[in-house]
Amino acid sequence: MVKRTRIKEVLESTAFGSEVTIKGWVRTFRNNQFIALNDGSTINNIQAVVDFNNTDESLLKRITTGAAVSVTGELIESLGKGQKVEVKVKSIEILGDCDPEEYPIQPKKHSLEFLRENAHLRFRTNTFGAVFRVRHALAFAVHEFFNQKGFVYMHTPILTASDAEGAGEMFKVTTFDIGNPPRNEEGEIDYKQDFFGRATNLTVSGQLEGELAAMAFGEIYTFGPTFRAENSNTTRHLAEFWMIEPEMAFYDLVDNMNLAEEFIKYVIGYVLKNNREDLEFLGQRLAEEEKQKPQNERSELGLIEKLEFVTNNDFERITYTEAIDILKNSKQNKNKKFQYIIEEWGADLQSEHERYLVEKHFKKPVILTDYPKDIKSFYMRLNEDGKTVRAMDILVPGIGELVGGSQREERLDKLTARMKDMGIPAEELWWYLDTRRFGSAEHAGFGLGFERLVLFTTGMTNIRDVIAFPRTPKNAEF
Amino acid sequence: MVKRTRIKEVLESTAFGSEVTIKGWVRTFRNNQFIALNDGSTINNIQAVVDFNNTDESLLKRITTGAAVSVTGELIESLGKGQKVEVKVKSIEILGDCDPEEYPIQPKKHSLEFLRENAHLRFRTNTFGAVFRVRHALAFAVHEFFNQKGFVYMHTPILTASDAEGAGEMFKVTTFDIGNPPRNEEGEIDYKQDFFGRATNLTVSGQLEGELAAMAFGEIYTFGPTFRAENSNTTRHLAEFWMIEPEMAFYDLVDNMNLAEEFIKYVIGYVLKNNREDLEFLGQRLAEEEKQKPQNERSELGLIEKLEFVTNNDFERITYTEAIDILKNSKQNKNKKFQYIIEEWGADLQSEHERYLVEKHFKKPVILTDYPKDIKSFYMRLNEDGKTVRAMDILVPGIGELVGGSQREERLDKLTARMKDMGIPAEELWWYLDTRRFGSAEHAGFGLGFERLVLFTTGMTNIRDVIAFPRTPKNAEF
Repeated sequence: MVKRTRIKEVLESTAFGSEVTIKGWVRTFRNNQFIALNDGSTINNIQAVVDFNNTDESLLKRITTGAAVSVTGELIESLGKGQKVEVKVKSIEILGDCDPEEYPIQPKKHSLEFLRENAHLRFRTNTFGAVFRVRHALAFAVHEFFNQKGFVYMHTPILTASDAEGAGEMFKVTTFDIGNPPRNEEGEIDYKQDFFGRATNLTVSGQLEGELAAMAFGEIYTFGPTFRAENSNTTRHLAEFWMIEPEMAFYDLVDNMNLAEEFIKYVIGYVLKNNREDLEFLGQRLAEEEKQKPQNERSELGLIEKLEFVTNNDFERITYTEAIDILKNSKQNKNKKFQYIIEEWGADLQSEHERYLVEKHFKKPVILTDYPKDIKSFYMRLNEDGKTVRAMDILVPGIGELVGGSQREERLDKLTARMKDMGIPAEELWWYLDTRRFGSAEHAGFGLGFERLVLFTTGMTNIRDVIAFPRTPKNAEF
Repeated sequence: MVKRTRIKEVLESTAFGSEVTIKGWVRTFRNNQFIALNDGSTINNIQAVVDFNNTDESLLKRITTGAAVSVTGELIESLGKGQKVEVKVKSIEILGDCDPEEYPIQPKKHSLEFLRENAHLRFRTNTFGAVFRVRHALAFAVHEFFNQKGFVYMHTPILTASDAEGAGEMFKVTTFDIGNPPRNEEGEIDYKQDFFGRATNLTVSGQLEGELAAMAFGEIYTFGPTFRAENSNTTRHLAEFWMIEPEMAFYDLVDNMNLAEEFIKYVIGYVLKNNREDLEFLGQRLAEEEKQKPQNERSELGLIEKLEFVTNNDFERITYTEAIDILKNSKQNKNKKFQYIIEEWGADLQSEHERYLVEKHFKKPVILTDYPKDIKSFYMRLNEDGKTVRAMDILVPGIGELVGGSQREERLDKLTARMKDMGIPAEELWWYLDTRRFGSAEHAGFGLGFERLVLFTTGMTNIRDVIAFPRTPKNAEF
């Protein structure tokens, strides 16, 4: 087999006169002469120039959009604009034909909806090539960030018998014959005979297990799939998505905020440094999309400017109580422009309120802390006031909530009292409570929905476009 | 909050005379004076020396195994053996008590089985601390290896409607009321009303989706959970485990073998370099365990020697046909010492045969290639002989199969013929076949079960001991 060079490397090479072999997929073929070839290593195509006078016509006809080809030729300096090098073709081999009558991906603008229906081929477009290279870079930056800090990567379980957390609707997992499961003498389904000897679900969060590990390793993180069986057909929700959940012993809420802010800046900074060309393309794409919008709905900053702004500026930090004051006194609220009018302390913030704070009022990412306990989870540490908890949400422009976290309740008596209040059975979470029985310590953590981070970083607007094969209600194709 | 220093850093420090604050869990407290403190950052404890004459007795009583404490004191050179530094305690605070009457993890040797039942606390032991730090390092090395080579990390779907691959028994996923699902007019379960509008399962492999991405990005990898609903209660099988699956366009089987061998050497080399102390501990542990075995069952090499041997030597590469010859002519086979006697070409190799080749015959990792098509999957490329396929398995000592891979069948006619032979419905895999219709190219890939890699690297012998919360038949605790 002939060794190939990746197009990214060839484009960066200045070894003019040397022979290279490149392999990839034809994006366009112009004038029976100019092949734009892409192999996914970069958003840029390389131009391969065919000597059509000395090339068999039947071969030329097979150089169609989507065909896989191997090209060997001389690397030469390019005279064309926008490219430094090109390949003067000596030999070309068609590895796999692509019938232009049948191939769905043509060299024209396709709608994102059409490309979702062809998710198996959409990686071959500029947009999705860029999106998934950025997604890769973000994922790598996540691991690099935590590894450098000495965090231990934990794989918390996907299958779980615990449904006590109440984070959302769960998928059931079974090996039973669904219409005809075994039943016990009372006529109830006999889960003792199911694969795990009990009813099991897909996890909604690895946090509780992550805390167990944090109470031994100090600092850990998870990065794995989580699930919600919610019938939400929005541009923000998936039934299957990836979450990053760090948990840290000996951290309080301020440490937690500091870590989360540093983390977000690090991973975005990594992409700014390593995926510049992809971001430039995505920025242009976004700018064109925004042109369709009325002036007042357009972003003030371009994609790269927005990302640089986030990495270069402190996030605003305010309490929930302060946020309620701002919202109550806002023109939006007074003129009843919000769908949900803020009337009193204790109200749950809706997406419109979060976006007002971030996009209109502060014009930067905002960390909101100390929410009313009644709108937050049982495991968050109760404040001295007895009515708020040490929660934090990080809100960013265009997305709303990117991170949700808290200092965890490490006091056994307070935790069990809260669970009792909320009807969470302590016996199911005996192992979680054990961390409060044996060497408890203050600790904190947060969760970040990875696809929301990819949305924010790429400027895409539908979450189905930033995960390879989205799972949503009535959709599990591929 | 007082800033703490991680014990790993303190142990490497020579800033004698400076004040440090450390936080962690008490491993032992001897003579009312010597605290061995661990925070999970390293296998080594730091010694904190308490001035018991000037410390309140009620405080001293609370310094028990498992208690979380914060210690501030002066870093001094240690006179004790096996440690360079210790902390002369100025102040100590009990963050979380630990009742020695109730705490399951005592400073003595616990059985692995006992620790499995206490998986939420076992991270606090030397063995599991070391295992999960090594697991982390291996995971990071996986990402670093592929990132350096320009591979794109893909998150392939966990929930899948496809059960066409036939890689094993699958878990069903539903939001139906099990036992009482909606039915259509024919009385069949009406999956159109289920969450995804069809019957769905947990994935057994991301390979098929991975191939789609490879045919756009060139080189990709997956690293995610996969599932088998097989009722196998062995030391080698889990119902939920993590797999790494690279897929590469323009690779043939030799490229695939080269990559897999380089990959294994890289990740093991990374751990040898970065987790030396953990490996030394695990090596001693293994040596002690082996002392219980009869002489002829003991490993010839210690753990670190074994890992160094693997990174320093070429893997043996032979065909299945050659392997059958070796096995047929072996004393083991002739003396009927194998449980399954090898009689003729075409036999599926059992674990005993794989281990004979690796542990007795070659005494090194072996890559077996070109298996009979009848014992391999539909997507493997058919050889010219019409009876073998371009498969490869990598076998390693103590584990058996660590990697399974192949060059994929890229020829549409051959692939569809094979699917027809095996009764795999082409219409369900239309998207997979599209990669062979539109710009097909030779490509290859492999899968590596991550827990088997962790087993091999740590010298642990039960797969339940290398994943945080193992899922096995009748077991989904925590």
